[in-house]
Amino acid sequence: MVPFELITVPADDLRILGTEIFTALGAPRRRAEFVADTLVEASLTGHDSHGVSYFVLYSDRIRKGHIDVKAEPVTVKESASSALIDGRWGFGQVTAMRAMELAAEKAKKHMVSAVGACHCNHIGRVGYYTAWSARRGLVGMMFVNVGHPSVSVYGGLGRVFGTNPFSASLPTGGKDPFLLDYATSVVAEGKVTVARTKHEKIPRHWIRDKNGMPTDDPNDMPDGGWLLPFGEHKGYCLQLLMELMGGIMTGSRSGTDTETKPPSPNGVLAIALNPEGFVGLESFDERTDALFQRVKDTPAERGSRVLIPGEPEWESKEHREKDGIPIPEETWNEMAKLAGELGIDAK
Amino acid sequence: MVPFELITVPADDLRILGTEIFTALGAPRRRAEFVADTLVEASLTGHDSHGVSYFVLYSDRIRKGHIDVKAEPVTVKESASSALIDGRWGFGQVTAMRAMELAAEKAKKHMVSAVGACHCNHIGRVGYYTAWSARRGLVGMMFVNVGHPSVSVYGGLGRVFGTNPFSASLPTGGKDPFLLDYATSVVAEGKVTVARTKHEKIPRHWIRDKNGMPTDDPNDMPDGGWLLPFGEHKGYCLQLLMELMGGIMTGSRSGTDTETKPPSPNGVLAIALNPEGFVGLESFDERTDALFQRVKDTPAERGSRVLIPGEPEWESKEHREKDGIPIPEETWNEMAKLAGELGIDAK
Repeated sequence: MVPFELITVPADDLRILGTEIFTALGAPRRRAEFVADTLVEASLTGHDSHGVSYFVLYSDRIRKGHIDVKAEPVTVKESASSALIDGRWGFGQVTAMRAMELAAEKAKKHMVSAVGACHCNHIGRVGYYTAWSARRGLVGMMFVNVGHPSVSVYGGLGRVFGTNPFSASLPTGGKDPFLLDYATSVVAEGKVTVARTKHEKIPRHWIRDKNGMPTDDPNDMPDGGWLLPFGEHKGYCLQLLMELMGGIMTGSRSGTDTETKPPSPNGVLAIALNPEGFVGLESFDERTDALFQRVKDTPAERGSRVLIPGEPEWESKEHREKDGIPIPEETWNEMAKLAGELGIDAK
Repeated sequence: MVPFELITVPADDLRILGTEIFTALGAPRRRAEFVADTLVEASLTGHDSHGVSYFVLYSDRIRKGHIDVKAEPVTVKESASSALIDGRWGFGQVTAMRAMELAAEKAKKHMVSAVGACHCNHIGRVGYYTAWSARRGLVGMMFVNVGHPSVSVYGGLGRVFGTNPFSASLPTGGKDPFLLDYATSVVAEGKVTVARTKHEKIPRHWIRDKNGMPTDDPNDMPDGGWLLPFGEHKGYCLQLLMELMGGIMTGSRSGTDTETKPPSPNGVLAIALNPEGFVGLESFDERTDALFQRVKDTPAERGSRVLIPGEPEWESKEHREKDGIPIPEETWNEMAKLAGELGIDAK
């Protein structure tokens, strides 16, 4: 087995590197900065599977014409509290942010809103957008499908749907929001890729090999294997809900469709909710904080710790902002090679 | 072990019996009919844990003053697309239905809506309301908390939250809607009660005993045990989301609060979404049906069957409408005893 080396890079250096890469590939500078920031934020919060390794993946997609770095999302249908956006195959991040911003604006005025998006490339870590909303005093939810099959259905064999993530973030009185943000598969596909890169085994309930057998070898995934939905039939129901709400409701590609280009598009439905239409933000924050305190005071199982959703992310961010972001040498070398090709000096 | 007997009763007889019971206890006849129908519908769809056994439980709560059979829900806050309803401790079913109807009315006009409800008694099977919405061409979602602790948090010991159910139902082109409808615990508490009534063992991942140990004895639940959230940390995140959206957002009682009366209240947040604000209902139905067909065509694991969420419910309903509803003898005897006390002739 190849020894596995980590290189630690300060977040700011990575923000600059990402911005330079996307700018060199034709993106307007502010947009390049924004996309780089979403990817660095994913790495900061500990989601390496959705982080800076995408500098290379997105660059490849830009060069192949799957991502149009100059495309502006357009609103194709709109009411006071709803909208449908056509992302025109620009950066998925730009489309998802536009959807969440529009949803937030409408929820501020009308208490609840829903904004869908189609023709949308990979949006990265979904919690970026929902937590943005929660930090502005709103509930943010995103129902997302991935138009690229990698996960089986409950009781079935083979790849049918994408990892179809769900995220919900809610304000608190404390400094960080509540954040639910996960794939409806046992894990995101990127976590299997990370294990492959690190030459590590994976738990046997993550994937099946091409013959439908349990396996702990992450290499079985690209070799015709598939991920499982989490939580048996209950996770499967959520997987389908994401497909219907994120994918079908917005006119986006389904995992069951036969097209394969562009790779891994997302269908996105953002819902924003304003606590002022209900108990009010002040009362909501106050009771939520008291509730979280009682949850944190719960006696833990041996060897365990009771966490509030989002807590691991905010803890990781605090550490990595101070200490830098650890990147596998292999990933770093790919980034340096790309930077070299684009005439950028990666420090 | 006591032998376990089932008595089979036609659904219509149970509707009449339930109506007579609630009418005898002072409920207006149309309201009694409606509440009885929601409980019979739960039994028809196979959810015996939420079914006609509640005739006896609700009667007890009415007699103790927890359910005010004459209370009218009132809207205490309202905007074009949102509302907050005070259920005034009437039948939970009446409050939940009012919330879903109001949400549907607003979503028909404004594409999306959210209606919360507080001071709401047990609403029964949540899928009743969301499927009602889906049959009218709308997405119906309900985020519900149970203000009565019976489930631990992930990694923690002891009862903290209720079974906090989630339901989402979506229209299809076929005769029945897609229906996600479940507790965020591994199972609903009622399913442990049903196992107790039937003198059956339960799977060891459902509950822990009072010492935090795995057990297959349903009697350990009333003896200080607790249910587990489903799907490890992912189900726990949903459990908390229900608590925050259904409970805190609506000003309802939390599982962590110290009050215990009335028993098992629900906090309810209904969200309705109109496909016309997005791809349109016709296109949504068409693509959803094609997608479900491909899912049904997926090769199944040995000994398994690929199901669409809601399918087991609609199949059970078809059978039980024809063949009658099986009721444990013990449950039936309790119902007959109650009917006798109220001077009703239970056939």
